[in-house]
Amino acid sequence: MENNIEKIYKLSEEFDGIDDRSRAESIEKELKELLKPYKKGSVGLAQIDPIAGDIEYNAKKVIKYIKHSQNVGLDMVVFPELILMGYPIEDTIDRHPIIVEDNVKWLKEVAKICTDITALVGFVEPRRYDRLTGKKYYNSVAVLNNGKIQSIVRKSLLPTYSEFNDYRYIEPSPVVGAQSGETLGQFDEDKIEDCSKLNVVNGVKYGITICEDCWNDSDFFNDKTLYSVDPIEELSKEHPDVFINCSASPTRAKKEQLKHNMFSFIAKKYSTPIVYVNQVGAIDNSSFDGSSRVFDKDGKLLARAKSFREQFLIVNPLMGLGKIYPLTNGLEKTLTENKVYTLEYEPDLERTYKTVIQGIKDYFKKTGFKRAVIGLSGGLDSSVCAVLLADALGAENVFGISMPSKITSTESKSDAEVLAQNLGINFATAPISQMFETTNNCLQKLFKEVEKKWDGRYKKSFTPDNIQARSRAMFLWGISNEFGSTLPIATSDKSELYMGYATINGDMSGGFAPIADIPKTKLFALARWMNENRKVKNAMPQSIIDKKPGAELAIDPKTGKPLVAEDALMPYEFLDEVIWRIENKKEHYYDMLNSEFLYEKKHKVSQEQKIQWLDKFYKRMAAALYKWSILPPSVIVDSRSINKYDYKQPITSSRINYKGISCEEIDEKINDWQN
Amino acid sequence: MENNIEKIYKLSEEFDGIDDRSRAESIEKELKELLKPYKKGSVGLAQIDPIAGDIEYNAKKVIKYIKHSQNVGLDMVVFPELILMGYPIEDTIDRHPIIVEDNVKWLKEVAKICTDITALVGFVEPRRYDRLTGKKYYNSVAVLNNGKIQSIVRKSLLPTYSEFNDYRYIEPSPVVGAQSGETLGQFDEDKIEDCSKLNVVNGVKYGITICEDCWNDSDFFNDKTLYSVDPIEELSKEHPDVFINCSASPTRAKKEQLKHNMFSFIAKKYSTPIVYVNQVGAIDNSSFDGSSRVFDKDGKLLARAKSFREQFLIVNPLMGLGKIYPLTNGLEKTLTENKVYTLEYEPDLERTYKTVIQGIKDYFKKTGFKRAVIGLSGGLDSSVCAVLLADALGAENVFGISMPSKITSTESKSDAEVLAQNLGINFATAPISQMFETTNNCLQKLFKEVEKKWDGRYKKSFTPDNIQARSRAMFLWGISNEFGSTLPIATSDKSELYMGYATINGDMSGGFAPIADIPKTKLFALARWMNENRKVKNAMPQSIIDKKPGAELAIDPKTGKPLVAEDALMPYEFLDEVIWRIENKKEHYYDMLNSEFLYEKKHKVSQEQKIQWLDKFYKRMAAALYKWSILPPSVIVDSRSINKYDYKQPITSSRINYKGISCEEIDEKINDWQN
Repeated sequence: MENNIEKIYKLSEEFDGIDDRSRAESIEKELKELLKPYKKGSVGLAQIDPIAGDIEYNAKKVIKYIKHSQNVGLDMVVFPELILMGYPIEDTIDRHPIIVEDNVKWLKEVAKICTDITALVGFVEPRRYDRLTGKKYYNSVAVLNNGKIQSIVRKSLLPTYSEFNDYRYIEPSPVVGAQSGETLGQFDEDKIEDCSKLNVVNGVKYGITICEDCWNDSDFFNDKTLYSVDPIEELSKEHPDVFINCSASPTRAKKEQLKHNMFSFIAKKYSTPIVYVNQVGAIDNSSFDGSSRVFDKDGKLLARAKSFREQFLIVNPLMGLGKIYPLTNGLEKTLTENKVYTLEYEPDLERTYKTVIQGIKDYFKKTGFKRAVIGLSGGLDSSVCAVLLADALGAENVFGISMPSKITSTESKSDAEVLAQNLGINFATAPISQMFETTNNCLQKLFKEVEKKWDGRYKKSFTPDNIQARSRAMFLWGISNEFGSTLPIATSDKSELYMGYATINGDMSGGFAPIADIPKTKLFALARWMNENRKVKNAMPQSIIDKKPGAELAIDPKTGKPLVAEDALMPYEFLDEVIWRIENKKEHYYDMLNSEFLYEKKHKVSQEQKIQWLDKFYKRMAAALYKWSILPPSVIVDSRSINKYDYKQPITSSRINYKGISCEEIDEKINDWQN
Repeated sequence: MENNIEKIYKLSEEFDGIDDRSRAESIEKELKELLKPYKKGSVGLAQIDPIAGDIEYNAKKVIKYIKHSQNVGLDMVVFPELILMGYPIEDTIDRHPIIVEDNVKWLKEVAKICTDITALVGFVEPRRYDRLTGKKYYNSVAVLNNGKIQSIVRKSLLPTYSEFNDYRYIEPSPVVGAQSGETLGQFDEDKIEDCSKLNVVNGVKYGITICEDCWNDSDFFNDKTLYSVDPIEELSKEHPDVFINCSASPTRAKKEQLKHNMFSFIAKKYSTPIVYVNQVGAIDNSSFDGSSRVFDKDGKLLARAKSFREQFLIVNPLMGLGKIYPLTNGLEKTLTENKVYTLEYEPDLERTYKTVIQGIKDYFKKTGFKRAVIGLSGGLDSSVCAVLLADALGAENVFGISMPSKITSTESKSDAEVLAQNLGINFATAPISQMFETTNNCLQKLFKEVEKKWDGRYKKSFTPDNIQARSRAMFLWGISNEFGSTLPIATSDKSELYMGYATINGDMSGGFAPIADIPKTKLFALARWMNENRKVKNAMPQSIIDKKPGAELAIDPKTGKPLVAEDALMPYEFLDEVIWRIENKKEHYYDMLNSEFLYEKKHKVSQEQKIQWLDKFYKRMAAALYKWSILPPSVIVDSRSINKYDYKQPITSSRINYKGISCEEIDEKINDWQN
């Protein structure tokens, strides 16, 4: 028996990657035989990677796994949330209703195939009424069997925060659980049928929910829930044998373990196994980790699919059939861990790496690009990006360009070249000194003209620094324009974006920004981790990791050496803790001034110095809001970010008083101002 | 009596712009005397322009008008929605809760001032509980009088579409109308007090609502409403004497008249006057038009504040006191007008002009910038932008730079210069030929290096065109870097952004994009309108309006003349109708192929030609999604837009089939693919 289980998973894995049709058929026959004892209650978890809006592509994947599930004799196959459309699809369905019509047409054709199987297929359901209250669509799951749409489950709880915008285009369902398939496109409050909320398949009762519908258990969340309804509680009243949750839940730092604990809690609380099927792959800025799971009725993990990989996983939650595939390190971290800032990034680095790799890979694949061109400065940011690109796109599809200026050190140039060699990526050198001189000459002439009319010329401006950064971007975009399927890469990191320490149309410009949600101190850790954990060890020269970050755009008059970024900003360890405290603890200026930073434990920092850094931080952050708004697409990695699809703040709110004010001060201000 | 009314408004207008304190006091005394007969039921509409998150700035404006209202002896003063915070404030309140604490502190201090007045002051109300269901905040209005917070009204209907994201951070109120001030910060479903929903001031009963709460009348909207509750209907059950609506409602094409009709309808339906106070000014991409209004119980317009101007307007809806200020042309257009595409833009041009002017002015003011630098090509886009900038910022604060290349015609150069002279803006010339040559030489060398490793070099690339556009942007950003308070301007228009016909880091780059929501055919109309309606007539040389738009970036080998944009794209009249049909009628490919375009009524277009244009349109639009995501802040003007804060579509959704598909085709595809 044990042996047969091993065989089932071995064959399943072989099938996942197979091209040979006759071998596939023989695998299916063998699987069918092996699965016979597990038939009743068997479920296939189809953890797949859809393309937003490409219904044909998504539907064909769905059909492939429906057929496969039928061929191996499963009771049921479950797909992620909104699988025909891809999640998220956003306002697209409102502006282009044709794709909603199409996803219904495809759904109906897919239903015809489901003769010997029950398939749970997510789709956007149009609501068409003469009378219509609410949004035009539901986020629905169709229960397909006997060649038709048997019933429909609709999402009640609509996440509308961070990267989620469900309530922009989706109406919350007024009822949880199953309604008849006849209600397709004509369901509403006044049409709720008095039928069982559960779906019965081969004598097993399933309680089906969609993503957020599972996320509202007031016991688990200590009475802090987002919605007043708990769909799982509602379903539990009819005593389902198994809960099923169709999801599209992106990875964020410390989120996966929260999910794990929550599903385990729910299974145990209701003494009912739960099957959670997650989307995998990235859609724009959101990277979905997969890691679909099954918990038994005691809340014990019975099965888990791979992380960051498409997979078809066969389970039987009632009979204990399942396999637990390894979880990517970092996904097991919990949100409830001690909320103290630490530089111990190691536990989260594999997750970080895979999140970004998948983000790059899917963005390129889904937009039709294949190759990346990146400026290699010999510094940390561009070096980490180069490694990530080589791993995501293949070394042959990456071109590193060293673009030295007069300021660039020999060391930086050679570091860049050695890195390229170690990675096996393409490499060329293109000095920018000519471009810099021509541009600077033209600009100096122009400035004299402008000066005749305008005052306010800076005595010491950053213009020369920016010319360098923009000349480099011009080379990279030039290559992208000249060679097919090629995108230039923006190398800005999270710490520097917070500080607006990035040049518009320069290093922050590109078709994609891989490390925009990774703070500098974590980038150092990631660099070390990649050097240790990639097949080719130490691809990144140690000198790149050891040197102090600096853009090599200007010379420090005091030292005669290129300026170091920390001198212009503040120590990265301090800076990154400020960011962490804002994002994770929502602290304000005085909270921070009055608490001890990790950096302060190691270095003596005077109160004046700390005030100066904090003042600089808030001033620079307020001025950086515009830069956040034009940042290229990037991968969200952290629990919170500045990605514009995740966090929205008006650019014109730059005059916010982050220090806060007391009632006495207000009183004084009012009196002063009026007298 | 008639004479006294005239006096009231004359004095009020004088007060609005006054600096002289003793004159202000004497005006107030005079007003108080004149207003005595109108005391009972008198309301001041404080139509003001807040800065998002700058609570001190906003609160001081609020205090100014509260004091004034007390001094002239009004019963009540009403401010726009969320006035202490500015609307929208977005996720800012979630990440920086300190500003919510502050707005409550300010509110409490403001309350103390309200000794002889009732003031309606919008604020973000924190919800603090051990048990918390839902979001952390309410969007509330405090009713201040007797030196304290008398009661609180909370918003129930939360717009979450287009530029609105209320449900991201606001919990809908479970009850409409007034609850006691004691409930501040501790109100919820289980704390609803059984009190009157109305507020009584000087014997008059007011039913208070916040913005969207007024937008759900099922009779007015023909049974198509967004929410299941109608707060106005609820309030009406207690027979208020007056409805009040605190709003922040931005201008969009044909929206204002809809509002007008709706408020008039509601007043008449319930035989109750309604006072609507709107925010004015722009916050980022949203431009609020003001135009606050009062309707009497028969639905007749009694008073209307100015459009696009701060104003304090005194009314008495019960006694017929009011004045109707002129409405900006275009605001009176209705959404229900015949939905047919037309080139008759004239009726909407004054609104368009003022919307953009206010958008530019407020963006600069609120971010602390004062001056703009713009490339003047002698073409339509940059010329229209230059006029708008001169009018918004003052001619002395605008620098036009002519940056000719070898391709630039003498005519274009002189047109640019004449325009600058006519406008009185600063002007300089900076040829880009040197930069072009240096960059191109460097790039050609680099391309040879790249070619050794990569195939796919285009035979005819747009690289040279893009070098020109990027060299120009480099000049403009250089000036912005070198001179204080200066922003470069992105000149892309809506038609070209739809087509991705804009250079990244080139003409689409800038600190602000004034015309990004104006299609090309409307820009021609706007240019003509400005030539006729500005104080200085015909500032824009007629030749700029007459010539065919073209970027002058490349030579047409056939004609030897610079390429015309319409040859690369399609006729703008056709293009703009495609955009209009998608945005306003949600049409798809075949809808358009099968209906007659305005362009076709005037020109013979073969079916092949139309198919070619439509194919090109959809292909280019799909590839333009990335460009939309990095577009600088701009002003939303049309009823729908591609502004990323207004419309969200995944960039990776570029493979959407906009043509749709029939069930038969799906059937075939499934069969073909599986055999």
